[in-house]
Amino acid sequence: MSEADTAMSDTTGSFADWVSAVQHRTESALDRFLPQATIAPARLHDAMRYAVLGGGKRVRPLLCHAAGALSGASAEALDAAACAVEMIHAYSLVHDDMPCMDDDVLRRGKPTVHVQYDDATALLVGDSLQSLAFLLLAEHCPVPADTRAALVSQLAIASGSRGMAGGQAIDLASVGLPLGVEELEFMHIHKTGALIRCAVRMGAACGHLDVDAHGRLDHYAGTVGLLFQVVDDVLDCEASTEELGKTAGKDAAANKPTYVSTLGLARARERARELHAEAIDSLSLFGDAARRLRELADFVLTRKH
Amino acid sequence: MSEADTAMSDTTGSFADWVSAVQHRTESALDRFLPQATIAPARLHDAMRYAVLGGGKRVRPLLCHAAGALSGASAEALDAAACAVEMIHAYSLVHDDMPCMDDDVLRRGKPTVHVQYDDATALLVGDSLQSLAFLLLAEHCPVPADTRAALVSQLAIASGSRGMAGGQAIDLASVGLPLGVEELEFMHIHKTGALIRCAVRMGAACGHLDVDAHGRLDHYAGTVGLLFQVVDDVLDCEASTEELGKTAGKDAAANKPTYVSTLGLARARERARELHAEAIDSLSLFGDAARRLRELADFVLTRKH
Repeated sequence: MSEADTAMSDTTGSFADWVSAVQHRTESALDRFLPQATIAPARLHDAMRYAVLGGGKRVRPLLCHAAGALSGASAEALDAAACAVEMIHAYSLVHDDMPCMDDDVLRRGKPTVHVQYDDATALLVGDSLQSLAFLLLAEHCPVPADTRAALVSQLAIASGSRGMAGGQAIDLASVGLPLGVEELEFMHIHKTGALIRCAVRMGAACGHLDVDAHGRLDHYAGTVGLLFQVVDDVLDCEASTEELGKTAGKDAAANKPTYVSTLGLARARERARELHAEAIDSLSLFGDAARRLRELADFVLTRKH
Repeated sequence: MSEADTAMSDTTGSFADWVSAVQHRTESALDRFLPQATIAPARLHDAMRYAVLGGGKRVRPLLCHAAGALSGASAEALDAAACAVEMIHAYSLVHDDMPCMDDDVLRRGKPTVHVQYDDATALLVGDSLQSLAFLLLAEHCPVPADTRAALVSQLAIASGSRGMAGGQAIDLASVGLPLGVEELEFMHIHKTGALIRCAVRMGAACGHLDVDAHGRLDHYAGTVGLLFQVVDDVLDCEASTEELGKTAGKDAAANKPTYVSTLGLARARERARELHAEAIDSLSLFGDAARRLRELADFVLTRKH
């Protein structure tokens, strides 16, 4: 076991060390699973690597590994599941940033893929990352075949028209509309929540848990998914572009409904604290095994970028 | 069994009746697998149905069913595999037609998705159809779990950066370049060939065949994939836009290398006849069970649109 692997499976070490170990492990697995930039078509493979490697907080892989620790999943299975969900996330960012969607030029402090390469390449990068995500689950995840098929189903539902892509469609249709908090949450449950929930569910599915435990974890994941978005909206309102590594104040400028525009800043902050308490509460029966999941909820609440 | 089902499994009936039965069956399965346009997000689901239903020759489903007849696969398993490969094909057309790619306004005689809806919706339609294709294989294909996982792998490889999407990238990079026939075939083996080959492979994988038979079928499929593209290039040069249902002469106008621009029209026609003979030859040991596959090779050679 490498030093990083030891830190990852150690539940007594600091949160910062654990995060760093999972991030390091995920980066190295992503690097291994992505085609090398020397393989034809080289420019496409180079752009896929640019889109995925060397950036991001890896929130979904962290949630996947933390849930997997609870279900006794192997680190190798969790690598494949974590990389699959991260590739779906990365593809969605590449497509969302394109001129026909959010038309953004900056992501994780770097030019977006369509700026660095071109629009057609960005389109193909997103398409190819999606295929690769499903390939990882079907072929490179060392769990029984029925589990691999179940992982593919879960990720396909979470990323498709009744999950993330559907949430994007609702988001586009809602520009300029005065949404209520229920409609706003419906959108975010799909757009951001579905994939975050899926990360937790897949981590759990790589090991073994009873139905009741899956239900409680799922409640945790749904709550953290919303929390993530509320905090995102608060940060988008408060932070500078430099701190965020992406264009700040963009949603307000684009007349998109946010928690802040819907609830006001003070009530949005309060909603974040409520969701955090609910997430922590849903973990109460797991004891110390859920430590990393609790720490992740704290992290999502208190993050500054 | 419905009348259409009987015609489909009948190997003594006419080719036209069999084609019509498979097309009918596929249309009805696609309709069932696609989310209803009444389910939110309704506009996205409406656009997904517009992109997939009511058009197309269904060449890939026909190949999938014909190969499945040879391996003893169930019609229900073949429906799922055929619809999955057709959804990948449909998504690729939607994305290829977008302004940042081929910028085409006409497809199957109708306005393309980005014209009928908008660019952002077209992007999300393609993304969502891809997820749905993998969901069908993982969840709605009545074969053992290890076969479902293998189908997901095959389709993911065929559609990703080392298959169809990779072929698109090579195609984009080759605009204006004088390609040799080997480079041209390398591009088409990826862009069109990979998915056609996958359709045959998936149909066979839904049943049982020995390794040698899989190898011969695979050779057939690779050859038919190239044949399909050579004929496409000849038709693009010869036919009118009205006959094709899509813009004719587009590749030449866009300065894209084709078999006709590389070989000349006479030699391209000759190459088509050679590939057809090779495809038929690779089926020689299968006897009458391969009748539909032979007829499909004839159809691909002689089609007028």
